[in-house]
This record gives sequence, C-alpha cells and structure tokens, in this order.
Amino acid sequence: MYAEFLRVLSSLGFPKSRAELCARLFAENSRDGVASHGLNRFPAFVAAVKKGQINPQAKPIKVQSRGSYEVWDGQMGAGNLNAYDCMGRAIRLAGQTSLGCVALRNTNHWMRGGSFGWQAAEANCIGICWTNAFPSMPPWGAKEPRLGNNPLVLAVPRREGSVVVDFALSVYSYGKLNTYQRKGEQLPFPGGYDHQGQLSSDPGAIIESRRALPIGYWKGSGLALLLDLVATLLSGGRSTAQIGQEEEEYAISQVFLVFDVAATPAGKMADRIVDEIITDFQTAAPASPSGTIRYPGSGTLAIRRESMEQGIPVDPQYWRQVLEL
Amino acid sequence: MYAEFLRVLSSLGFPKSRAELCARLFAENSRDGVASHGLNRFPAFVAAVKKGQINPQAKPIKVQSRGSYEVWDGQMGAGNLNAYDCMGRAIRLAGQTSLGCVALRNTNHWMRGGSFGWQAAEANCIGICWTNAFPSMPPWGAKEPRLGNNPLVLAVPRREGSVVVDFALSVYSYGKLNTYQRKGEQLPFPGGYDHQGQLSSDPGAIIESRRALPIGYWKGSGLALLLDLVATLLSGGRSTAQIGQEEEEYAISQVFLVFDVAATPAGKMADRIVDEIITDFQTAAPASPSGTIRYPGSGTLAIRRESMEQGIPVDPQYWRQVLEL
Repeated sequence: MYAEFLRVLSSLGFPKSRAELCARLFAENSRDGVASHGLNRFPAFVAAVKKGQINPQAKPIKVQSRGSYEVWDGQMGAGNLNAYDCMGRAIRLAGQTSLGCVALRNTNHWMRGGSFGWQAAEANCIGICWTNAFPSMPPWGAKEPRLGNNPLVLAVPRREGSVVVDFALSVYSYGKLNTYQRKGEQLPFPGGYDHQGQLSSDPGAIIESRRALPIGYWKGSGLALLLDLVATLLSGGRSTAQIGQEEEEYAISQVFLVFDVAATPAGKMADRIVDEIITDFQTAAPASPSGTIRYPGSGTLAIRRESMEQGIPVDPQYWRQVLEL
Repeated sequence: MYAEFLRVLSSLGFPKSRAELCARLFAENSRDGVASHGLNRFPAFVAAVKKGQINPQAKPIKVQSRGSYEVWDGQMGAGNLNAYDCMGRAIRLAGQTSLGCVALRNTNHWMRGGSFGWQAAEANCIGICWTNAFPSMPPWGAKEPRLGNNPLVLAVPRREGSVVVDFALSVYSYGKLNTYQRKGEQLPFPGGYDHQGQLSSDPGAIIESRRALPIGYWKGSGLALLLDLVATLLSGGRSTAQIGQEEEEYAISQVFLVFDVAATPAGKMADRIVDEIITDFQTAAPASPSGTIRYPGSGTLAIRRESMEQGIPVDPQYWRQVLEL
C-alpha cells in the first residue's frame, strides 16, 4: 500500500521525502483501521492535488515566534504533511521549554487527527490538537449548519500502549452516517434531527436535514464554537464561518499543543502513574456480563497488530482506483 | 450577600483580603445565576472549613517553574481562591511570554469553573482550564463510576460580551439530576442508564444506578479519562482514581492555560474577528419559529444584568442558613 501511494504521490510532484511521509501517513491510517482517512480517502486527495487545491511543493513557513508559541502558515500544502511538521515543531519546542504551541493556518484536512496524537505520545509528550472545519453542524437550537465538527485529539504516552482520543464533535460524522446508510442500519444512538425536528437514529433522515447532533447537545455546540474561535485567533487563519463561504473545505486552521512529560513533576514516574489510572479504569465492572472495558487507543493497537500480521484488509473498489492512478 | 459571606469567612480565620475575594467569588456565582455554586453551596463550604478539609490560612505555593509552565501546590486551601490565584498567575505568564500554563495540585472544588474563564477573558486573554474530580461516571461500557465529570472551561474575550463555555462531561451533573427529581420532572434528554441497563430520562433512576451518561457516549468517557491523565501528570497531583479512594472529594488537580490575545496574529483585530464568528453563529435559522440562537456566555450576562438591577433571587432556606452562621 505504501509503495503504491508513494508511486502516485511522486508522479504528482511531491519531493521524494514529502511523498514518502505522505504515503506513510496514509498507509498508517489504513493499517490502524481508519481506512476512511487512509486508502478510501486517497483518490479524493489525489483529485484535490490535481485540481490545485493542495500544493505538493509547499512546506509550512514560520510567521511568528515568541517563547513556546509559534504561528505557521501551511501554504495550502498537504494537510497531513503540514500537521505532522507542526506537531513535530511543537514537540521540539516542548523539549526546549517544557511546552510548545504551534498554531497553523492555510492548511488542508489533516486526514486522521489521531496520527498527530500518536506522534506526540511516541516522543514521550502529551499532545493536544484540534482543527476547525467546514460548517456541518447547527448551533444548539438552530437548524442550519454553522459549526464545524472540529475534531479534537488528546494523547498521553504509555510504554504498554499510549492513551489517545480522537473525536469529532458531532455524535456521528457524515462519513459514519453514510456507512450506516449504505448498510441499511439504524444508528445505535440518535445522531441528529429529522425534518420534523425529532431526534432520529435514521442516518438518511439526518443526512437530508443536515442537522447532525453535537455531543452533549448544547455542550458540544459551545465547545465547537470555542475551538474554532481559539484556532482562528491563535493562527490568524480562517474561521469556520469564512471556510463556509466557499463550496469546499479549504484553508483551515489548527492548533498543536505539546507538553514534554520529562519536564513534569511526574517525570520518570509518569509511566507508572498512567498505568495506575488505566488499570483503575479497566477494572470497572462491565455493563454486560461479556463486556470488557477498553481504554482509548487500545483498539487502534489491536488492529495495528492484526494488520501487520495478516495484511491490511482493503475495499477492492478503492484499491483498484489507486492502482489505476 | 457579599457582606454576609464576608462576615462568616472572616469569623473562620480567612485573612481579610482572602475573605473578601472568596466572598466576592461566591456572591458573583449567585449573581450570574449559578446559585448551586454560590449561595446554595456556601453552607457546605463553611462546613468543610470547620471540618478542617479546607485550610483558610493556606495560599498556593510555587513548586516548579520553567518558561511558560509552572506547577503550584494548593496546600488544601479554598478551591476558588487557589483557582483564582493560579489563573491570575497564568495570565501574568501569558503577558510576559504570550502563553502561560499553571498546573495546580492539592486543591479543592473550584465551585464555578466559569469564574476563571471570565477572569481570563476580562484580562483580554483566551483561557482554557479544567479540573479532575471524584469518580461519578462509569467508563463507556461499564456500570461502576471510575471517571470524574471533570468540568472543562474555554473562554474568549469580546468587548460586547465574552464567549465562555463551562461544562461537566456528564450530560447532567448530579446537582441537575437532583433539581429535576425535586421538581418531579423528567430530563429533556436521556441522562444515564437505569438498573436494567436502559437509557433513561428519569433522574431518580440515574441517581440510583450511579450510571450518569458521558457527553457523546464513548467520546465523553475518553475525554474525561484524558483530562484526568493530563491534569494529574502536569500537576504531579492526585488522579480521580486516587481521589476516589476516600469518602469525599479532597486534594484534586487542575490545569490553567492562557494565551494573551495581544500576542496572537489577530492582535487588535481580535475583537472584530470574534464578532464576525458570533454574528455568523447567531444568524443560523432557529429550529422553532420563536427560537433564538444564543452564544455561550450571553445567558450569564443577561442574568448578571437582571441581578444587578433587581437584586439576586435567593432560596430562603439557604439564605437563612447563612444568616445563622
């Protein structure tokens, strides 16, 4: 998969090292079970490069720097490359000053946000990052989209398996709604409102009404607004309101915040402290007799192991598309 | 109200300036419509001081400092005073270095977290803070509490009215569940599971099962775990797992993160940028014909204005208790 991605990206004008990194990030997403932002997304990414929305030659440039806080401009390069570079820069800042914050503007969709949480955790850092996005969710009490689902990532390193959450602020993303619809299934929990203004578990009704439900109702609506405000101010980039003035998502804003675990009071004890908390979490009695309590990140590692042993399962339709690119 | 709080706090051994600040923070909570963490909580706060759980003489002390990141020890002083001091310290750090992060350990309940968001916004800063707490919420898939509802606050300054969210990670706090139960009302949305493992809008059933629902189901469960992990590591303080080993909430951990808006690329344009985003948010068509879309923070300002014009409405039961203290 990596070799095929690399071949296609090289043909598009990505410099060698950038093509390699981009191919790796896409392949890792499929390897970790997030094909929606791996193989399945790759053809659309290639189309965006061909349309000129993504500049394969671009590298982010530093706009402003003071102590632990820097502002970078993504120059409309590949979103996953920009995010990887800026998380890397925040990790280096944290190594020098104990914490680093890089705000990024004029970037594109970062694909799987969790990638950059794992990147921080693998450097023994706490990573917190988020992005704004095209409007897809109505404010609480409204029926028209004004908020991005603004994915938020938090990651804490742990030798036995890092703890990583990566979630959009709608209960279900439109990608998930489409998946349920294709399978003809109802959602496990209400995911939005239908045209009659009733909470609904019918993915089709929500796709039609465009009224996806924020997590925690009014709470997720407020959080999405604030994450957009903070990303916009810190980066000097575009807000969800501005992004929504065009047809497609383009030139978005992100924040990468990193703490060096070695610089915390926990220091070398951190791994034991995190272990104790995860152990306590996992020993809660399951709600169903056969249930197990999984900490966030453990599922990713299980799928990663399976992929590395047995290969990555692919949707043949997308795989063929990539082979033909 | 302020005068009565001040009288009681002075009699408990709080030094004059600390009694004044503590009285003001409690009174402001009632003024802003959060009596649950203002007047109604004051008698319980006084009881905790009398029991020796809160030390009226304590001031937080600096444990560790490097650049924009500091660790403070709350010395088991009043939670609202400790939080105010640490948010103030983070604001000063941000003024010097563009961002400041203060992690606080060995503190107590901060009452209304939003207080400290407003504090940052009034200093023209972006404020982000959170606290861990006594376990009150099961991990996703479990039926025993292991997670705090770990309130999270984000605030962005705006001349016409700052934008502030302040929310616990359960859909409804136990305080809210109690209020609905007393009134004999059902919750507007499911707030937890009953003993049969069914989602329920009956506040009594959830109080009994102790299975409050995290916002966004598995998402809020993951977020609560990560906020606890980060607060514990950054402060070197106690985790929710450790707090839960005692009968009552005691010696908790918090994080205060501040960005100086003047140091962002937005700079003096920030107010206009925030205004544009809020205007876009508020012009979404309401779901019901008579509905209005309110940005987070506007309700607080409306209640504040009403309180200042007409006085703060009080529950006579709690008011009498305070007069008798």
